[in-house]
Amino acid sequence: MANDSRFVNQIADIESDFPQWYTDVVLKTKLVDYGPVKGTMVIRPYGYAIWENIQRELDRRFRATGHENAYFPMLIPMSFLSKEKEHVEGFAPEVAVVTHAGGEELAEPLVVRPTSETIIGNMYSKWLQSYRDLPILINQWANVMRWEKTTRPFLRTSEFLWQEGHTVHATEEEAEEETKKMLGVYKEFAENCLAIPVITGKKTEKEKFAGAVATYGMEAMMHDGKSLQAGTSHYLGQNFAKAFDIKFLDKDGALKYAYTTSWGVSTRLIGAIIMAHGDQRGLALPPVVAPVQVVIVPIAAKKAGVTEKCVQVKQLLEEAGIRVKLDDSDNSPGWKFNEWEMKGVPLRIELGPRDIEAGKAMTFRRDKLEKGELPLEGLADSVKQLLDTIQKDMLDAARERRDKRIVYASDMAGILKGVEGGNFVKAGWCGCRECEDRIKAETAATARVYAEGETAEKCAVCGKPAKHMVIFARAY
Amino acid sequence: MANDSRFVNQIADIESDFPQWYTDVVLKTKLVDYGPVKGTMVIRPYGYAIWENIQRELDRRFRATGHENAYFPMLIPMSFLSKEKEHVEGFAPEVAVVTHAGGEELAEPLVVRPTSETIIGNMYSKWLQSYRDLPILINQWANVMRWEKTTRPFLRTSEFLWQEGHTVHATEEEAEEETKKMLGVYKEFAENCLAIPVITGKKTEKEKFAGAVATYGMEAMMHDGKSLQAGTSHYLGQNFAKAFDIKFLDKDGALKYAYTTSWGVSTRLIGAIIMAHGDQRGLALPPVVAPVQVVIVPIAAKKAGVTEKCVQVKQLLEEAGIRVKLDDSDNSPGWKFNEWEMKGVPLRIELGPRDIEAGKAMTFRRDKLEKGELPLEGLADSVKQLLDTIQKDMLDAARERRDKRIVYASDMAGILKGVEGGNFVKAGWCGCRECEDRIKAETAATARVYAEGETAEKCAVCGKPAKHMVIFARAY
Repeated sequence: MANDSRFVNQIADIESDFPQWYTDVVLKTKLVDYGPVKGTMVIRPYGYAIWENIQRELDRRFRATGHENAYFPMLIPMSFLSKEKEHVEGFAPEVAVVTHAGGEELAEPLVVRPTSETIIGNMYSKWLQSYRDLPILINQWANVMRWEKTTRPFLRTSEFLWQEGHTVHATEEEAEEETKKMLGVYKEFAENCLAIPVITGKKTEKEKFAGAVATYGMEAMMHDGKSLQAGTSHYLGQNFAKAFDIKFLDKDGALKYAYTTSWGVSTRLIGAIIMAHGDQRGLALPPVVAPVQVVIVPIAAKKAGVTEKCVQVKQLLEEAGIRVKLDDSDNSPGWKFNEWEMKGVPLRIELGPRDIEAGKAMTFRRDKLEKGELPLEGLADSVKQLLDTIQKDMLDAARERRDKRIVYASDMAGILKGVEGGNFVKAGWCGCRECEDRIKAETAATARVYAEGETAEKCAVCGKPAKHMVIFARAY
Repeated sequence: MANDSRFVNQIADIESDFPQWYTDVVLKTKLVDYGPVKGTMVIRPYGYAIWENIQRELDRRFRATGHENAYFPMLIPMSFLSKEKEHVEGFAPEVAVVTHAGGEELAEPLVVRPTSETIIGNMYSKWLQSYRDLPILINQWANVMRWEKTTRPFLRTSEFLWQEGHTVHATEEEAEEETKKMLGVYKEFAENCLAIPVITGKKTEKEKFAGAVATYGMEAMMHDGKSLQAGTSHYLGQNFAKAFDIKFLDKDGALKYAYTTSWGVSTRLIGAIIMAHGDQRGLALPPVVAPVQVVIVPIAAKKAGVTEKCVQVKQLLEEAGIRVKLDDSDNSPGWKFNEWEMKGVPLRIELGPRDIEAGKAMTFRRDKLEKGELPLEGLADSVKQLLDTIQKDMLDAARERRDKRIVYASDMAGILKGVEGGNFVKAGWCGCRECEDRIKAETAATARVYAEGETAEKCAVCGKPAKHMVIFARAY
């Protein structure tokens, strides 16, 4: 059956106008809508269901690594921000400020949290007494607000949802280990749940979190070859401990400042999924986070037994823990095919009178746009296996697409050519801010992360000996 | 073994100083702490885990009744509030207002949501086209802010967490049915999950939600006989549909205003659990929402085999889906007993060398303060059964305590005597605002809900014919 082209035509061309493709897809699939206040978004049920799946998977991993959830107030006294010099410089320009409440002007303006190191640090200083209280391993699921000039749904919005882990440790080593452990959790999650291969590594001083000693990031390649920072993990040293007096009585009887970390991922990840896997037909969602994993489309639904069989198959799959939608609307099968392909449902099952008679179901894989068939006998098991295969194949395909687009450059011209061609570019860097700034000015690329375990001879800008091999890319 | 009295003594007397008892319990059990901004609270891991259990149970029920989750922006243009006259009068005095963001003064001040009828109504008017789009059944889990003069953790705080359902229907009947259905969901949840018996019913005009046609509430009796409004469900008629232009093309080709509802419960429920079940030893948590359902305390832990057996029992119970804590700290058993009793863990299991030899475990039920024993053989099953029994018994006990304290009064003196004695008082009411105001002025009691299906002859205030039998109580 030929696909109805109406829907395809409603989405801008993915190759020639990727930004418009993105906007078309997020709106038409009802993932999101614009809120009434500039820069805000409404996460609609189909988009929020992805977030809930992300939350479930991450939350399980946070607990398995010993973390507990808590909730801290959203309003932070302006004076808290100022206690850490770099922190206030980084965040003050983009905060939203509550100046009036309960009909009165407040004595001190309150900031809507852009991140919670300060208010959580304030509480930790109250709670922490002795080395016996350590480590403190707390995570928070919350909304945060950063007033941005240019916004796009999921990628950059005034308000977004995220999780922020905040931990306290007795020693530098433990805190650094935690920072890297959570980066590892993010990477494993991104690859196995979102089917997005990521490059993890340390960030440059320029790109690090305001107030951190070191920031580690994970970078994902989008369809257009640009990078999306999909998560960060910060080693904060004693910066916040000193600013907020987070001290403990150690085993040796001495009062010591603790070491802290913080790490977070946000609804931005939904943008990453869209831009890493999407194609001209719309979304392509990895099964682990897809709100609907299987859509059943009845063929010749009015023929005796078809609807009944579809309902039966739906129940069967649901009982096996699969998220299923039976589209029994009045629309034509062709219309339904387009609709659910655009919405990125990983697997379509078609059931018509002849299929039922032959004891099989026709299938369509969204990732490979590939038809197939499965016997009705043992369908739940074979569908589960197929979903696992799709999940794995999507990661492999994304990795293949990405790896072809990681190039090496030895000079500025090479970096420019590389990023203009939609690549991640590896290049040597001397470590000085001037060279980093020049690359940004001349190529619009930024240093994403250090390429771990790799070395370079010369800086691609100044030709002096290179301290690091860096991955440069244009980024969201 | 005699209980160590240190902890008991640290909690104020529940009968003579219930407010201080409450404060002592919420702080000492680490459910909550005060935030740095007046009126805010930090929900600590032990408190947040209760909220997560509440969320899980409610979310399941919302889905089973056809609702989906979504997320709407927290900041609402001030002008939205003004579109519904009663709504703005009710909420404007307690909103927090963002006037500056991104380093600039905003053209229009933004309100931090005190509730989301207005911003969600604005989106629904955009999304709703035809009767085919109805009903819209959406729920949101979010933080909200209401600037209150007098605050107490969980009961009344500037910021709190809640869920708010917002639905749209084609007809008055459907919307009213939804309003009552969700009230029923709340009641079933409160009784079966929180073990709190509730009285549900319609509220008076004075007590209804600002902007509603009718508000239905559920009222729970606290230890001191005062009432806590534990949840509300509002039938909004076409009030918000007209204010926000929520219209649809009906089957008959006519453009019509829709009918809407909203309903919510909040972290207040944690306060309800504390005050409905707590006693002089501290918290008593119902198993369904207890963060820890069973605590295992080793007796003579240094004796061979004790620790091993405790670890084994813990694993066994965990595999059966029970939330277990093994307290293998260095504290004495007596200290641990007090600690976990104060924290309200429903069931304690003690395991010592003699118990292990005899193939049994000693038990202690937090609700009845009752010792017992269980054979180690088949322990997971018998513990599960016992937790079910505790859950049921806690509801029965709370119901018995409450029912003894519902009295009838035929005049003002009777109402005053009733509420001063810590009772819910049923009394006839003529339906006029003056009489309702007089009761409040003279007894500090308010009309909680109409007593469903009950009638009264005369108004307890003016003696005129009664329109309703009303439940009056002092309330949190």
